[in-house]
Amino acid sequence: MRQGAGEVIYGEGKTAEQIAAIASSLMGAGQPRVLATRVDAKKADAVAALWGDDGGIAPCAYYETARLVVFGGMPAPDGDGVVAIACAGTSDLPVAEEAALTAEFLGNEVRRFYDVGVAGIHRLLDVADELRAARVVVAVAGMEGALASVVGGLVAAPVIAVPTSVGYGASFGGVTALLAMLNSCASGVSVVNIDNGFGAAFQASAINHLNSRQG
Amino acid sequence: MRQGAGEVIYGEGKTAEQIAAIASSLMGAGQPRVLATRVDAKKADAVAALWGDDGGIAPCAYYETARLVVFGGMPAPDGDGVVAIACAGTSDLPVAEEAALTAEFLGNEVRRFYDVGVAGIHRLLDVADELRAARVVVAVAGMEGALASVVGGLVAAPVIAVPTSVGYGASFGGVTALLAMLNSCASGVSVVNIDNGFGAAFQASAINHLNSRQG
Amino acid sequence: MRQGAGEVIYGEGKTAEQIAAIASSLMGAGQPRVLATRVDAKKADAVAALWGDDGGIAPCAYYETARLVVFGGMPAPDGDGVVAIACAGTSDLPVAEEAALTAEFLGNEVRRFYDVGVAGIHRLLDVADELRAARVVVAVAGMEGALASVVGGLVAAPVIAVPTSVGYGASFGGVTALLAMLNSCASGVSVVNIDNGFGAAFQASAINHLNSRQG
Amino acid sequence: MRQGAGEVIYGEGKTAEQIAAIASSLMGAGQPRVLATRVDAKKADAVAALWGDDGGIAPCAYYETARLVVFGGMPAPDGDGVVAIACAGTSDLPVAEEAALTAEFLGNEVRRFYDVGVAGIHRLLDVADELRAARVVVAVAGMEGALASVVGGLVAAPVIAVPTSVGYGASFGGVTALLAMLNSCASGVSVVNIDNGFGAAFQASAINHLNSRQG
Amino acid sequence: MRQGAGEVIYGEGKTAEQIAAIASSLMGAGQPRVLATRVDAKKADAVAALWGDDGGIAPCAYYETARLVVFGGMPAPDGDGVVAIACAGTSDLPVAEEAALTAEFLGNEVRRFYDVGVAGIHRLLDVADELRAARVVVAVAGMEGALASVVGGLVAAPVIAVPTSVGYGASFGGVTALLAMLNSCASGVSVVNIDNGFGAAFQASAINHLNSRQG
Amino acid sequence: MRQGAGEVIYGEGKTAEQIAAIASSLMGAGQPRVLATRVDAKKADAVAALWGDDGGIAPCAYYETARLVVFGGMPAPDGDGVVAIACAGTSDLPVAEEAALTAEFLGNEVRRFYDVGVAGIHRLLDVADELRAARVVVAVAGMEGALASVVGGLVAAPVIAVPTSVGYGASFGGVTALLAMLNSCASGVSVVNIDNGFGAAFQASAINHLNSRQG
Amino acid sequence: MRQGAGEVIYGEGKTAEQIAAIASSLMGAGQPRVLATRVDAKKADAVAALWGDDGGIAPCAYYETARLVVFGGMPAPDGDGVVAIACAGTSDLPVAEEAALTAEFLGNEVRRFYDVGVAGIHRLLDVADELRAARVVVAVAGMEGALASVVGGLVAAPVIAVPTSVGYGASFGGVTALLAMLNSCASGVSVVNIDNGFGAAFQASAINHLNSRQG
Amino acid sequence: MRQGAGEVIYGEGKTAEQIAAIASSLMGAGQPRVLATRVDAKKADAVAALWGDDGGIAPCAYYETARLVVFGGMPAPDGDGVVAIACAGTSDLPVAEEAALTAEFLGNEVRRFYDVGVAGIHRLLDVADELRAARVVVAVAGMEGALASVVGGLVAAPVIAVPTSVGYGASFGGVTALLAMLNSCASGVSVVNIDNGFGAAFQASAINHLNSRQG
Repeated sequence: MRQGAGEVIYGEGKTAEQIAAIASSLMGAGQPRVLATRVDAKKADAVAALWGDDGGIAPCAYYETARLVVFGGMPAPDGDGVVAIACAGTSDLPVAEEAALTAEFLGNEVRRFYDVGVAGIHRLLDVADELRAARVVVAVAGMEGALASVVGGLVAAPVIAVPTSVGYGASFGGVTALLAMLNSCASGVSVVNIDNGFGAAFQASAINHLNSRQG
Repeated sequence: MRQGAGEVIYGEGKTAEQIAAIASSLMGAGQPRVLATRVDAKKADAVAALWGDDGGIAPCAYYETARLVVFGGMPAPDGDGVVAIACAGTSDLPVAEEAALTAEFLGNEVRRFYDVGVAGIHRLLDVADELRAARVVVAVAGMEGALASVVGGLVAAPVIAVPTSVGYGASFGGVTALLAMLNSCASGVSVVNIDNGFGAAFQASAINHLNSRQG
Repeated sequence: MRQGAGEVIYGEGKTAEQIAAIASSLMGAGQPRVLATRVDAKKADAVAALWGDDGGIAPCAYYETARLVVFGGMPAPDGDGVVAIACAGTSDLPVAEEAALTAEFLGNEVRRFYDVGVAGIHRLLDVADELRAARVVVAVAGMEGALASVVGGLVAAPVIAVPTSVGYGASFGGVTALLAMLNSCASGVSVVNIDNGFGAAFQASAINHLNSRQG
Repeated sequence: MRQGAGEVIYGEGKTAEQIAAIASSLMGAGQPRVLATRVDAKKADAVAALWGDDGGIAPCAYYETARLVVFGGMPAPDGDGVVAIACAGTSDLPVAEEAALTAEFLGNEVRRFYDVGVAGIHRLLDVADELRAARVVVAVAGMEGALASVVGGLVAAPVIAVPTSVGYGASFGGVTALLAMLNSCASGVSVVNIDNGFGAAFQASAINHLNSRQG
Repeated sequence: MRQGAGEVIYGEGKTAEQIAAIASSLMGAGQPRVLATRVDAKKADAVAALWGDDGGIAPCAYYETARLVVFGGMPAPDGDGVVAIACAGTSDLPVAEEAALTAEFLGNEVRRFYDVGVAGIHRLLDVADELRAARVVVAVAGMEGALASVVGGLVAAPVIAVPTSVGYGASFGGVTALLAMLNSCASGVSVVNIDNGFGAAFQASAINHLNSRQG
Repeated sequence: MRQGAGEVIYGEGKTAEQIAAIASSLMGAGQPRVLATRVDAKKADAVAALWGDDGGIAPCAYYETARLVVFGGMPAPDGDGVVAIACAGTSDLPVAEEAALTAEFLGNEVRRFYDVGVAGIHRLLDVADELRAARVVVAVAGMEGALASVVGGLVAAPVIAVPTSVGYGASFGGVTALLAMLNSCASGVSVVNIDNGFGAAFQASAINHLNSRQG
Repeated sequence: MRQGAGEVIYGEGKTAEQIAAIASSLMGAGQPRVLATRVDAKKADAVAALWGDDGGIAPCAYYETARLVVFGGMPAPDGDGVVAIACAGTSDLPVAEEAALTAEFLGNEVRRFYDVGVAGIHRLLDVADELRAARVVVAVAGMEGALASVVGGLVAAPVIAVPTSVGYGASFGGVTALLAMLNSCASGVSVVNIDNGFGAAFQASAINHLNSRQG
Repeated sequence: MRQGAGEVIYGEGKTAEQIAAIASSLMGAGQPRVLATRVDAKKADAVAALWGDDGGIAPCAYYETARLVVFGGMPAPDGDGVVAIACAGTSDLPVAEEAALTAEFLGNEVRRFYDVGVAGIHRLLDVADELRAARVVVAVAGMEGALASVVGGLVAAPVIAVPTSVGYGASFGGVTALLAMLNSCASGVSVVNIDNGFGAAFQASAINHLNSRQG
C-alpha cells in the first residue's frame, strides 16, 4: 500500500496465524494500524485469541458484516471532506460496510446511506442534498445496479460504483450489475470489480486526500 | 396473429414485392388493415410505388423512425385504458416508436413519455402520475436499462421492459440492458427481446384488451 | 410492495429470527398477511417455533415445495379472472408452486397444469381450452423452454414465461431456457428472471387485478 | 468425402475459377457428380459461364435459395427410405433447402415440410403421420429452436436438429437455437452446427443408406 | 419414451422411494424392464433395499460407474448391427458406460473401445476396422473433444459425439468439447448435450433399430 | 452535464444538421462552449460548413484523431492540478486524445504520455515522477490492458483506466482489456466502458475540480 | 523487437505512407531488413510504388497470402534446426504462411506440411517422421483445432498451436479452436492468440535460436 | 508421456490405491521415477501409507503446496540451461510450485522468482538480468495476468504464461488472466490452460532439452 497511514492484509486464503503474525510484524516495524480484509467470523475469533497477548496497547477489533479486522484502532479523519457510501438495503451491506470501514481506516469521515434503492426513488431523493455535499460517493448495488446511474445524475462529485454479487439467475454473480454500471447513462461514474468494497474505498480515500497529501 | 383485428408481416428479409403481395392478399381476404415491421425507407418507397394502384381505398403509410408500414389506416382505440410508452431520449426512439405505433395499430390509446432518462430523475418524477394512470407501461431503454427499475417502483400497473441495442463497448448490443431488466429490483417487470418494440406492444395490447375481448 | 393487500419478505440470507420479527412487525402495523419467500425447510421450522406464541390469531403455514411461508392465511380471490400456471413436470414444480402460491397469496384464483411438456404435445393440447379461459398464463419450463412458445401460440391472453434452472450441461443453469423464451416465435410472451416464480406471479396478479384496482 | 457417390466442394472463400476447376478435375477423374456449397448467385453465374464449354454432357445447375451448385445432375434415390426435412417458414428456407438438396444429391428421397412452426402447432400435427413414416427427420429452426423438441416427441426415427442464425437480439446468431436443441426434452435428438444444413443431410444420408451400403 | 421395449426414469432429484415406486408401477403395468439414470451409489443401495421384496422375479442391478439401475434385466440384442462406443480413458468412463449400458438396455449389441485417445493415435488406428464394422459409433470425449473428428474421418457410419465435463480451467465443464465437436472438420458427426451418454445411446439405438422397427 | 462550464453532444447517430443546430441553440442560450463527441471527418466537414456563418465569434474546431468538434474554443485551465493521460502507442491514440481534449475542454491542464507500453517498461519508468506529480491519471490501453496495473503501482493519485477496442482475436473488442483492468492487482484503479475516453476525462475533471468547485 | 536481426511493423491501421516511412527510417538506421505484417494487397501496391525509389539496394517483396511485406530480402537461415509449420488445408493458409514467412524472415529454415487435417489422419501420419525431425512445430488449425492435439501426441519437440478464425456458427471466429487447443490432451502444447501466425513464429524462432543466441 | 525419463499420473479423480498401484506398476516396469499431480494432502497420506512397504528403495515424497507426489526421487538436472519460474506472490504459489517441481522432476535446473508482481515493478526489474540468463521463462499470474507481458518485454527467451484461478468477481476463475496473456503486447509469449503449471513445465522442459535430446 502506498499511503503509509496503515497497511492492509488480504485475508482470503491466509490462516489466522499468518494474519496475526503479519499484523504483528508490520506494527512492530512502526505501522500505527493494520487492516485485514475478507476474514470470516471463525478465523477472526482465532486471530483475536492469538492477538490477546498484546495487552491493550494495540487493540484488535472485528467487524463481522464487513469481515474486517482492524489492529491498532481507527484513526481520526484527516481527509478533505466526506466520503458518502450509498446502497439499497440488507443484501448489499457486507460490501457497503467493507467500503465504509476501509474508508474510515484510511482516515476519512464517512456518511452511510443504506436504504436508498431505486425501486423506492423518494428515499434516495430525500438524501440528495447530503450526497451532493460529499467529496466523493461510493454507490454499492447488486441485481441491476441502477443505483449508480441515478446517483450519478444527482451529484457532481466523482462516483465510484461497486457491483455486488447479490442476486440470482441472470445476475450471474454480479456480472449484470457490473455491466450496467459500466454503461451508466450518467457521466462521471467509474467502476471497480464485483464485491470490491475495499478497492472503491481505497480510491475514494485517494480522492479525498488529494489536498492533504499534496499540500 | 391471434386478434383478428389486423395482421402483421415481419418485413426483415422480405422484398418490397413480397410485402405488397402479402398485404394485398390479406386485405383481399377481408383483413381491415395490415402492419409490416422492420421495413427500411428504401424498401418502403418501393412498397408504396407498388401499392399505389389501390387508389385510396386502403392507404399505405410509412413511419420512418419506427420502420413500419401500415396498410388500411389506424383503427380507433378500443382498449380498456391507456398504454404508456416511456424512454430516455433520441437513441431509443426507433424502438419506442415501433412499440407506440404497433400499439395504436392494435387498437390502443397510447401516451408517449420520451425524455425521462434516469440520469435526470426529475423529468421522470414529473410524469409519475400520468404513468400511474396507464393500464400498462412499456419501458424502453438501452445502455444500463435502469429506466425499467425506476418505473417499476413508481407504478402498480404491469411494466413490460424493452432493452435496446443502443450503446457501445460493454453494452454488447443490448445484452447489458436485457440482463439489467431481468434483474430489476422492482417486482412486476417482465422483459422481451432486445429491440423488440413490436412484441412489447403486442403483449401490452393483449393486457389492455382483456375486458373487451372477454366481456 | 405496492398492493397493500399483503407484504413480502425475501427470505434468502435472512435468519429465522429476522423473518419472524419482520413478519410480526408488519402484521402489528396492520398488514393482514405476510409472505416469506425462499425459506428452506429447516429455517421454516425455526420460524414456526418462534411464531408459535401468536396463538392462532395469525397462523403460519409452510409450503415446502415452493419454499414459502405464509403468515395470516391465504385471502379469498378477488381478481378479474383465473391465473393459469403451466409446467412440464416434476423438476419444475418448485418454481411453478412458488408462482401458484404467490398468486393465491395476492388474491388470485389459480389453476395448475403441471404435466404438459412439449415432448408429449397431446397432453398440452388436451388442456388448451382451459388455458384459453385464463386471464393470464404463467409458463414455467427448464431445459429448452419450448413450452412458452407452444402455449403462446395457443392462447390470446398475455403469457409470462419463467425459465427454470432445471437441466445440466449446456442448459447453463437456466440460461438456455431464458434465451429461448426471449426468442419465442409466438408474440405476446414476456419473460422474467430464472427461477423467478414470485416475479411472474406478481405481474400476473397485477394484470388480473386491473379492473378491481382501478374500477 | 467418404461415399464415392459424389464429391463435395466447400465453396466459401473459393473463386468461381477454383470451383469450376476442381469440379472439372473431379469429374475428369470419374466422379459422376459434384456438389459445391455456399456459392452466392454472382459467383454461380461465373461458374456457369466457365462451365458452359462442357456441352450438356455434365450439366451445371444452380439452386439459389440453398446456394448450391450441382455438376452432373441429381442421382436417382437409392436409400433405405425417406428423409424428411421440417422447418417453420420463410426465414429458415436457405438452410432447409441446403439440407434437402444435399440429401437428394447424396441419393435420398426427400419430403419437405416447410410451414410447421410450433406457434401454429396444428399444422405440425397435421403432418405427424408423414413425419413418422420417414427413416430420419431433419428439423431446421431458428429463434428458440422449439421445433426439434416437438418433432422429437412425435416420431421414433432419429431426429437431427439444425439451428439457424435466423433471429435478432438475444438469438445471438443462432446460439440460442443451438443451446435449446442440445437441451431438448425429447430423447433421440442430436444437433449439428448453426446453419449446417449440409452436415445434417450428410448424416441423414448415412443413416438412410445403412442397408444399401452394408448389405 | 417411445419404444415400448422398456421405460426410463431420470433419477436426478428423485428419492429412492420415488424411483422404486415408479419402477414398480411401470412393471406392474406390463413393462418388461425399467432403467433409472443418474442414481448415485447411496441412493442405489436404498433402491435395492426397497426393491428386495420383489423376490427375484424382476431383479434390480446397479452399475456404479454409469450410475444406472436396471430393473428386470437386460434384453437380448435385437438391433440391426453393432453400436460402437469409443472414448479416451479413465475420466470419460462414467459417460461412456452410461451410453454403453443404455444401448444394451435398449436391445443393442455394444462394442467398447475405451483407450483410444488422439494423443496416442495408433491405438485408435488399431481398431479402425472394428469401428468401421459398426452400424453407428458413439464418440465420448472431454477436454478438446478431438476424438469425434478423427473417428468421423475414419468411418462411414453415423457418428454421435458426446462431450464430457472432464477437464479444468478453460474446458468450462465440457463447453470446449461441445463446441469442438459441433465444429468437427469431419462430416457426418452430430452432437448431444454435455455428459448425455443416455441421449447418444438412445439415438444410436433408434438408428440401429430402423429395420427391425419398420420391417 | 452538470458543470455549467460547457455542454456536450453525443454525436453518434446525429446528423451534421442536428449537431450544428443543438450547438447553436446551446450557445445561444449562454453556453460559452460546446463539445460534440464521436464525429467522423466527413460529418465534421459538414458541420463546419453549416457553422461558417457564425463568423469568428465562436469558432468551430475539429480534432480528427479524437473525433471531437469544439465550438467556442478551449477554456483556460482552472483545475486543482494536472491530469495525466498515459497510453502505449499509435493504436490507442484516438481514445487517449478523446480523453485529453475532453479534459482540456472541461478546464484541465493535461499532460500526455503516449509511448509508455509495458513491453518497454523503461520508457514508462522514465516518466514515473511526472506521473506522480499529476492530480489524477487516466491510463488508456487495449490488448491485455496491463498499463493500468503498472501505473497503479507507481502513483498514489487516483487512476482511471480506459480499455480500448484495440486488438484482434481473443481481445474481443476490448473486453479482455476491460476485464484485466477490473482485476488490477494495484489498488486505487477504477474503470470506465471500452473506448470511453470521454467518460474517463469527465471523472478526472470532477476530481481535479473538487477544490475550485467547492471552495 | 528484441533480436536485432530485423524489425517488425504491425501494418494494421497504418497507411502505406506510414509503413514506407517507418521501414525507410529503420533501414536507414542500420537494420538489414524490415517486416510489415497485416498489409492487404492494395496497400502493398501503394507501399511498393513509394518504395520504388530505393533502387534495388533494398528490395521490397509482397507475400499476398500471408499479407506480409518484406523490405531488404530474406536472410540465410541461422537457427539450430528446422521449424515445421503444419495445417489442414486451403482456409488456414493465410495464417500458416504468415507463420512460415515470419520464421524465414527471422532466420529459420522452415518446412511446410499443409494438407494434414485430422479428418484424413493418414496424410498426417505419413509426415510424422519429418515432424519429429523439427526443432519446434507450429500447428495451425481452425474449426475444432484438433490438429494440435494429434501433432502433440506424435512429436517430442515443443508445439505452438495457432487457432484460426476459419469456420462459421459455433466456431465463434476462432474461439472454439482456441479453447480446444488450450485443453489439448497432449502435453507440451502452448497456444497463441487467434490468427496470430506472427507470434507463433516469433516464439518458434526464439526456441530455434537458443544455441546461436547464447553460445 | 514422451520422454522416457519418468512417467506422470494425473491424480485428480483417482483413489490413493489407484495412484499407488499405477506408480508401483510403472516402476516395476523399469521407470526410475513417477510423478503424481493434483493429489491433496489427505490422499497423499494414504498413498504414503500404502507405499511404505517399498522400504527406501524408491522413496515417496509429498509436496503439499504443489499437490505433487514424487516416487523414486528427483533426478539430477540434465537440461541445456536454467528454467526460470516467476510469479507475484502467495496466492499463485501452488501453480508456480507445480511448475517448478515438475520441471525439476523432468531434469531441469530451476530458479524461482516468487515476489515479482507488476504493482511493485522494481522488484521485478531487480531480477531482470537473472531472468534474461534463463533458457526459458514460465510466468505464473492470476487476476489481470500482466506479469507475462512485462516479463515478455524484458527477456529474449521464450516465455510460457500460466494464468491462475486466483482472484474473484470478474476474474472468472482465471479467464481474465488467460485472455490477457493471449493478448500480450510482448511477442514471444505463449499460453497454457488455467492453473496448468504442469503443462508449462512440460513444454519448458522440452525446450530446455532440445540439445541433449537431439545431440
